[in-house]
Amino acid sequence: MAKLTPDKKADLLIGVDIGGTNLRVGLVNKQGSVLADARRPSQAEKGLAATVSATIEAIKSLLDQQNRKPTDIAGIGLAVPGNHDSKKGLCLTSPNFGGEFPVPVTEPIEKALGLPAFMLNDANTAAFGEHRFGAGRGVDNMVMFTLGTGIGGGAVIDGELRIGPTEGFAEVGHMILDPEGPQCGCGNHGCWEALAGRDAIIERAVRALEYGDDSSLLALCEGNLDKITPALITQAAQDGDALSLDVMEETANWIGIGCINLICLYNPEIIVIGGGIAGALPLILPTIKRTVHARARFVNAGCCQILPSQLASDAGLIGAASLVLKSME
Amino acid sequence: MAKLTPDKKADLLIGVDIGGTNLRVGLVNKQGSVLADARRPSQAEKGLAATVSATIEAIKSLLDQQNRKPTDIAGIGLAVPGNHDSKKGLCLTSPNFGGEFPVPVTEPIEKALGLPAFMLNDANTAAFGEHRFGAGRGVDNMVMFTLGTGIGGGAVIDGELRIGPTEGFAEVGHMILDPEGPQCGCGNHGCWEALAGRDAIIERAVRALEYGDDSSLLALCEGNLDKITPALITQAAQDGDALSLDVMEETANWIGIGCINLICLYNPEIIVIGGGIAGALPLILPTIKRTVHARARFVNAGCCQILPSQLASDAGLIGAASLVLKSME
Repeated sequence: MAKLTPDKKADLLIGVDIGGTNLRVGLVNKQGSVLADARRPSQAEKGLAATVSATIEAIKSLLDQQNRKPTDIAGIGLAVPGNHDSKKGLCLTSPNFGGEFPVPVTEPIEKALGLPAFMLNDANTAAFGEHRFGAGRGVDNMVMFTLGTGIGGGAVIDGELRIGPTEGFAEVGHMILDPEGPQCGCGNHGCWEALAGRDAIIERAVRALEYGDDSSLLALCEGNLDKITPALITQAAQDGDALSLDVMEETANWIGIGCINLICLYNPEIIVIGGGIAGALPLILPTIKRTVHARARFVNAGCCQILPSQLASDAGLIGAASLVLKSME
Repeated sequence: MAKLTPDKKADLLIGVDIGGTNLRVGLVNKQGSVLADARRPSQAEKGLAATVSATIEAIKSLLDQQNRKPTDIAGIGLAVPGNHDSKKGLCLTSPNFGGEFPVPVTEPIEKALGLPAFMLNDANTAAFGEHRFGAGRGVDNMVMFTLGTGIGGGAVIDGELRIGPTEGFAEVGHMILDPEGPQCGCGNHGCWEALAGRDAIIERAVRALEYGDDSSLLALCEGNLDKITPALITQAAQDGDALSLDVMEETANWIGIGCINLICLYNPEIIVIGGGIAGALPLILPTIKRTVHARARFVNAGCCQILPSQLASDAGLIGAASLVLKSME
């Protein structure tokens, strides 16, 4: 909870999306549009406290650039990766950040800027943004997951974003889909993230290339397998490369299997897919849906739509700003 | 929704728990105690409408026996297996029952007895009972699953039992834990129910016996493998039979893997295990917990307790009666 109270008469919000590489601050209006934004390195290796200081500077400089005063702003919302006690404004752990934990996030921002600040886990925030202003508008039951380095999730149940007693609701990336599967960063085996996250996709392509399969991917990565990314694989697949198509097909199948579990557990009206993989969705969404409907013949699967994120890379920023709106309701 | 309104001054409730084999009606007080109950065959092959008629007769006869009038009763709650539109009081499908669907459940009961009637899926009802009067009292976030022929589930999130838009919330038995696993009754492969439900347990034992492993189970089933039940396997395991211990260990491991997914998706404070398997819990609960804590090292697993049901075979009945209490709040 913010210690300060949002000024309902102020027209604007600040959204902050902190990632392991960059932080983004944005000026957002109450209709969920990003009016202006700026990006800075998050300097994760220096620790989250340093990132919070960088955030304060980035907000000040954005306000200056836009000729805005803090009194124009109702409050600041932050999407922060990791495990939090968001009521206290604390980040408890965050794997990509060095330094000591817990780290106070909202308090230094409130002190420096005189504005109320709110925080939530990044995947929850993205789901919140998508629910307020994106693919989930008007939907009371939805799950969103973000496919990137990891797989994060957030779920709206009966109209409310649920975060859970220790803010671990919808940690969908660590559900087990194959107990004998590849090891995950969390230490467990066969987590969804270890089967369909960024590293799994790359690993699948590298393994096939090392096996000697021919592929246009080799030219795209200039013969350097370390340069292979999901974006390159997607590009090769879109150009018809058989190896890359196979990789994306297998990945899409795992994504579909995860979606079935989301349907079984949450009975959502919609599943929204976001994150860095978004560019590959036109390619893989048909396979995802085919997997779901071939395997899950029950009524709840038939009722559930699987949709791409509408807010794309703005979901976290807009969701973060929406935390301020929610606090005023 | 019941068309009639519960009489708040009436001291008693009727709970009904409809199963594929038997139906049970009980006189329940507002503190969740079963004062008297009766059991009848549910005659599933004749269809659910016939079961509803049998329920009406069973309630009348229970009231007669107990010298109670309908005016002593605030209302009737029913736990019914299958997929429902419970607001309309309709059962849409129920695999163990013959006949046509949808079947009106609450309306004929209200008409015959002049009392308001409420219904919900059986697993949801059991979770509701356990939340109100059992292991989940005072807990705002819990999941219960019932291990029996299938695996049913119900979840309380932020203090409320959630049923989902098409009443498919917490269909935990059909989450996939092994996409290449054994086929499930639903047509899919590797559902939790196909790995840890009644048939999976029996199949595991039969396979080992057919392979020629020695076991005291052979004497217990009098050499007839068709007579093997989870209860017999549990009995043999408790007597130290190595084959049966292996079967229960493997089963417990799959139960533990399912629990990890429940923790990832719901972040519950407690997981409650009920259903026909309850007798085996002292044997398998340590392995279930070991699997969870060996694989899931994140904080949300450490915060979650895994507990046996407190209401045991009364969970559905008491939960059903509690639907009437909820309608009066």
